[in-house]
Amino acid sequence: MCGIFAYLNYNVTCTRRTVFQILVRGLQRLEYRGYDSAGIAVDDDSGEDHKNGGCICLFRNRGKVKALADKLYEQTFLDFDKELEIHFGIAHTRWATHGVPNEVNSHPQSSDKNNEFVVVHNGIITNYKDLKKFLESKDYVFESETDTEVIPKLTKYMYDNRESEDVRFSTLVERVVQHLEGAFAVVFKSLHFPGDAVAARRGSPLLIGVYSKCQLSTDQIPILYQKYKNNKNGGASKAHQIETENLKCLHPPGEEKSSVEFYFASDASAIIEHTNKVIFLEDDDIAAVADGCLSIHRIERSVGDLASRAIHTLQIELHQIMKGNFSAFMQKEIFEQPESVVNTLRGRVNFETSTVMLGGLKDHLKEIKRCRRLLLIGCGTSYHAAVATRQVLEELTELPVMVELASDFLDRSTPVFRDDVCFFISQSGETADTLMALRYCKDRGALTIGITNTVGSSISRETDCGIHINAGPEIGVASTKAYTSQFVSLIMFGLMMSQDRISMQKRRKEIIAGLQTLPDQIKEVLSLDKKVQLLARELFQHKSLLVMGRGYHYATCLEGALKIKEITYMHSEGILAGELKHGPLALIDTQMPVIMVVVRDPSYTKCQNAVQQITARQGRPIILCTKNDEESRKLAYKTIEIPHSVDCLQGILSVIPLQLLSFHLAVLRGYDVDFPRNLAKSVTVE
Amino acid sequence: MCGIFAYLNYNVTCTRRTVFQILVRGLQRLEYRGYDSAGIAVDDDSGEDHKNGGCICLFRNRGKVKALADKLYEQTFLDFDKELEIHFGIAHTRWATHGVPNEVNSHPQSSDKNNEFVVVHNGIITNYKDLKKFLESKDYVFESETDTEVIPKLTKYMYDNRESEDVRFSTLVERVVQHLEGAFAVVFKSLHFPGDAVAARRGSPLLIGVYSKCQLSTDQIPILYQKYKNNKNGGASKAHQIETENLKCLHPPGEEKSSVEFYFASDASAIIEHTNKVIFLEDDDIAAVADGCLSIHRIERSVGDLASRAIHTLQIELHQIMKGNFSAFMQKEIFEQPESVVNTLRGRVNFETSTVMLGGLKDHLKEIKRCRRLLLIGCGTSYHAAVATRQVLEELTELPVMVELASDFLDRSTPVFRDDVCFFISQSGETADTLMALRYCKDRGALTIGITNTVGSSISRETDCGIHINAGPEIGVASTKAYTSQFVSLIMFGLMMSQDRISMQKRRKEIIAGLQTLPDQIKEVLSLDKKVQLLARELFQHKSLLVMGRGYHYATCLEGALKIKEITYMHSEGILAGELKHGPLALIDTQMPVIMVVVRDPSYTKCQNAVQQITARQGRPIILCTKNDEESRKLAYKTIEIPHSVDCLQGILSVIPLQLLSFHLAVLRGYDVDFPRNLAKSVTVE
Repeated sequence: MCGIFAYLNYNVTCTRRTVFQILVRGLQRLEYRGYDSAGIAVDDDSGEDHKNGGCICLFRNRGKVKALADKLYEQTFLDFDKELEIHFGIAHTRWATHGVPNEVNSHPQSSDKNNEFVVVHNGIITNYKDLKKFLESKDYVFESETDTEVIPKLTKYMYDNRESEDVRFSTLVERVVQHLEGAFAVVFKSLHFPGDAVAARRGSPLLIGVYSKCQLSTDQIPILYQKYKNNKNGGASKAHQIETENLKCLHPPGEEKSSVEFYFASDASAIIEHTNKVIFLEDDDIAAVADGCLSIHRIERSVGDLASRAIHTLQIELHQIMKGNFSAFMQKEIFEQPESVVNTLRGRVNFETSTVMLGGLKDHLKEIKRCRRLLLIGCGTSYHAAVATRQVLEELTELPVMVELASDFLDRSTPVFRDDVCFFISQSGETADTLMALRYCKDRGALTIGITNTVGSSISRETDCGIHINAGPEIGVASTKAYTSQFVSLIMFGLMMSQDRISMQKRRKEIIAGLQTLPDQIKEVLSLDKKVQLLARELFQHKSLLVMGRGYHYATCLEGALKIKEITYMHSEGILAGELKHGPLALIDTQMPVIMVVVRDPSYTKCQNAVQQITARQGRPIILCTKNDEESRKLAYKTIEIPHSVDCLQGILSVIPLQLLSFHLAVLRGYDVDFPRNLAKSVTVE
Repeated sequence: MCGIFAYLNYNVTCTRRTVFQILVRGLQRLEYRGYDSAGIAVDDDSGEDHKNGGCICLFRNRGKVKALADKLYEQTFLDFDKELEIHFGIAHTRWATHGVPNEVNSHPQSSDKNNEFVVVHNGIITNYKDLKKFLESKDYVFESETDTEVIPKLTKYMYDNRESEDVRFSTLVERVVQHLEGAFAVVFKSLHFPGDAVAARRGSPLLIGVYSKCQLSTDQIPILYQKYKNNKNGGASKAHQIETENLKCLHPPGEEKSSVEFYFASDASAIIEHTNKVIFLEDDDIAAVADGCLSIHRIERSVGDLASRAIHTLQIELHQIMKGNFSAFMQKEIFEQPESVVNTLRGRVNFETSTVMLGGLKDHLKEIKRCRRLLLIGCGTSYHAAVATRQVLEELTELPVMVELASDFLDRSTPVFRDDVCFFISQSGETADTLMALRYCKDRGALTIGITNTVGSSISRETDCGIHINAGPEIGVASTKAYTSQFVSLIMFGLMMSQDRISMQKRRKEIIAGLQTLPDQIKEVLSLDKKVQLLARELFQHKSLLVMGRGYHYATCLEGALKIKEITYMHSEGILAGELKHGPLALIDTQMPVIMVVVRDPSYTKCQNAVQQITARQGRPIILCTKNDEESRKLAYKTIEIPHSVDCLQGILSVIPLQLLSFHLAVLRGYDVDFPRNLAKSVTVE
């Protein structure tokens, strides 16, 4: 939710047009994180203040990034061809939390009319009301309804009340950040520090890409702790010394000045086309670029804290985040599932020996096996992956398994014990509630395992161990391939836990053989696309839609209904078929569309009973069933027939027609599949 | 689901009109269990078969009992004034499971055109397809789509293929029942055994009321086990001897013949106006009345089986099951909550010493305290009572608490251990899934605790111990007062568990004080009725409705949404506010009505954030908040303001406006509140 992008060129000549293009492109890559409004802030040398380094001008617009771009290129007072040697531009695409989507609530938010400080922010400042009250008492006038606006205004207040003339930009931000509660990733630009940048994070993700033609001077950025500064002069200069070494690249022969470019972004997809060298900021890091040098600051050094942040080399490639021939990322990702599932399995399952080895858990396996209980914690789709695999994990591990929605888990202050093993499932690895739950469980001494799709994400860093699902970048806001890969990852965990149990070998072999045929079966399900599209034509004008099933397919129903809700805005609901008689049956009539998952597994008869109850009420169920199921054909209004798999894997196949259905429904209803209204990928606020 | 009623008069003279009236009245009392169609079977002496004891005629009709009654009184071939000395009539009101609601699918179902055997049935025969196939191979022709029809036809088959001429009616049924799988309560009437009755149950409830002017000969009915009959002649006669003693009442002086009346019914509410003496049948009991004598038969006697069934005296009174001045039972029950909650607390909470004593659990308390985990299991509203109290139980007992939907719990074959304590929550105490889950947990050695509203119900009998919620009979299909009383019962359990903990005394006192003021606070909430009605006027034409909240009020949302779903047929859904950003937010626009529960408790700020996100999307939330909450008033489209209580009790107050809302919505939409389409109270099939 909310995408931050910023670009700083230092001794790299580019025209203003190029700067605009880089900023707009960056926002477009991040647009899946929010598209209620967009804005940028760049230097403005057109006015009278030209001599003093100019001023900062904002462009902000309601709606998607495209609308902002149009506005940018229509403006006339800035010279597009002006060459900028050193420049820092910040940009933002918004997912509205506080305040409706309009221009004045868009970011960058500003400190005052002169835009002395401008800020882009992702997250929620929970104490903004108190800060606002304080600043209003100091005669600051607020123009927006956002929580963000307190940040630039507080920065200006700190600047105007600074102790000495030569306060540094990073010091200023350090002071501001100490007053903020909640979650944030922020990037600051200031009239008082032209060409410099400061960024900070707590809770929300932020990373910095670095590019230089010449070799960088280091691949470790030392962290400057405030304690270096105890001794006011010597200390400060020492810190500064280290700093100036950082990241100035080696002068190439024949050139005088070092040149470097920095990209600040909420995630790697906006950076990868420029550079694959990135630094992941940690919570409470403050990163500053002054005179082309990057330094990282922290208030205090605790025992065990690293002395530096490494520059990582990203493995993803540009084509992985391009749509290719598909009309939407979501569609591309649905059709990628035969491969993404293979990638999840690759190097982990040995089909010849029927063994499973998850490298990330290997060292902790003994400890995991000693536990008394497994907790699977996630939000949205990730939670559904937990629900889907709960039963087979209970079977294979013989442990009680609890599945928890992260927000409810925290609200309830759920008891967690030292002998619990807790899984944290999140595609982005940055989901705020899941991350908070992780910290909660860590504090109580539980062993923590991350299941994420993003190397270097907060959850993957902060857990004791983990499984990387390897599904490849997922851009579509509605998660599809991450779900099936999370599903497969959890199954592999169960298989690894039961490897040593003689009584389970038969069952394990059956499941592993099922995993092997899965990719081909997924292809077979995907070939139903046309049929599902026809079905969508019948359904797309309805307002409501129920998806029912039980046993292994309860999760399929929840997940299918969520997909439909997310991108078609139809009121769809996943209902446990066993609960039908306890209320939901009242909704059934000839009009209400009902999709039932009835596959050949131990709950088949019970599901058929549910179908009977629906047809007895003139309902016309669309049945998602196993191939050639004559009974279901008889009872159904229509069937969608999928290949048969092992009971506990069948849910991977049964969810795909619902993914396809939601896609086609959304297209028919005229919605933009990759940009569902009100939603954003990667929910980094609570 | 499905109501059975039957009336047998033995040497009690009544006119045919009276018999009709008794049968119709019985069905009307049971109509909340199903009202898709109704039917009765009585003796017919109008035809040519008059000499041979006549034949049996059926009256069956689609729709409610009223429609059947009209049909009955319009018929002309039977003489209403005919006095019947000995007669047995059976009746049924149907909740359709197999086959649409129409005349031919109505009960009684019949063996053949001559109605040699007719049967009323509550439950589901899961192997009916196999039986049907078998009978069809024997040239039986089926006319209905019901599962039930196999029962009378199989009975006729057994009769036609009997070994000896003088087979007894009970023996015949014994044989039939051994071939049935699934759940059933059945009552049989036969042309071959005029004036006799046989009933049997497995899974579905059935009880027998007895009335005689003179004193009954015993208050214990001995059970006749088949093993008495090993020796073919002597044994049988011995059994018969015992039998003929049963329940023949003592001859009053001056009268020659014993006279007695039997009432068979699915629950006590249909019997109480005739007699308060009842026998609860156990699973696999077969009860037979021959020549006015009641006997109870079982195949085998296992160790620990009782030798007899006691005749109980019921405590409920007729006025408790009458509507009074209210327009619907549901409305009456909503308004009864100040008293029903007091009844739940009565004799259990000592407000002066702040102690709680649940008599039913006293003897097991030590054992309960030794457990490692609590499982709360239920369906529908009872499940919501578990969700509502989970957090406070986790807090007070310091144990992990799992809440489970009974059907899903069974589907998953959830691991259960000897050191688990399992709660089974069911208003009727007969809910099929919950009962099955109880047996599953018992088999695995867990300690089982029942929380029911029905003395003598299967769950209250089969659990190790339990809490009777004492809410009084609940007739409305949509459960209201049972929910709040279940809620209070679980809270009392938590309080009892923490009685000995010094560190919890403050919290316990706070909760107990909260319980004391609860009844008055409920009255205060009920006084909002008019306001809620006005709100309902604004909402009743919408198709969808979302109810959101978190923390202690997640259950309120689920339960409120279920109430609305059940009786208004609007597609309402309870959504965890913390999950809003992971999908449901896409549904929000200016049209979608949203009710948010935002009360002053630890999740208040997070809930306000959720409200902000909704208003940022032009949503117009109706906020259910604590009295005088200025912040909520500012953000809300409308508020419903309830008195403040302790956090963990607040949910009792917050659910009531939603109960009222669902009632008014249903009335405005023109629906019959006590008879929601497709639903029935007390779900006794899986």
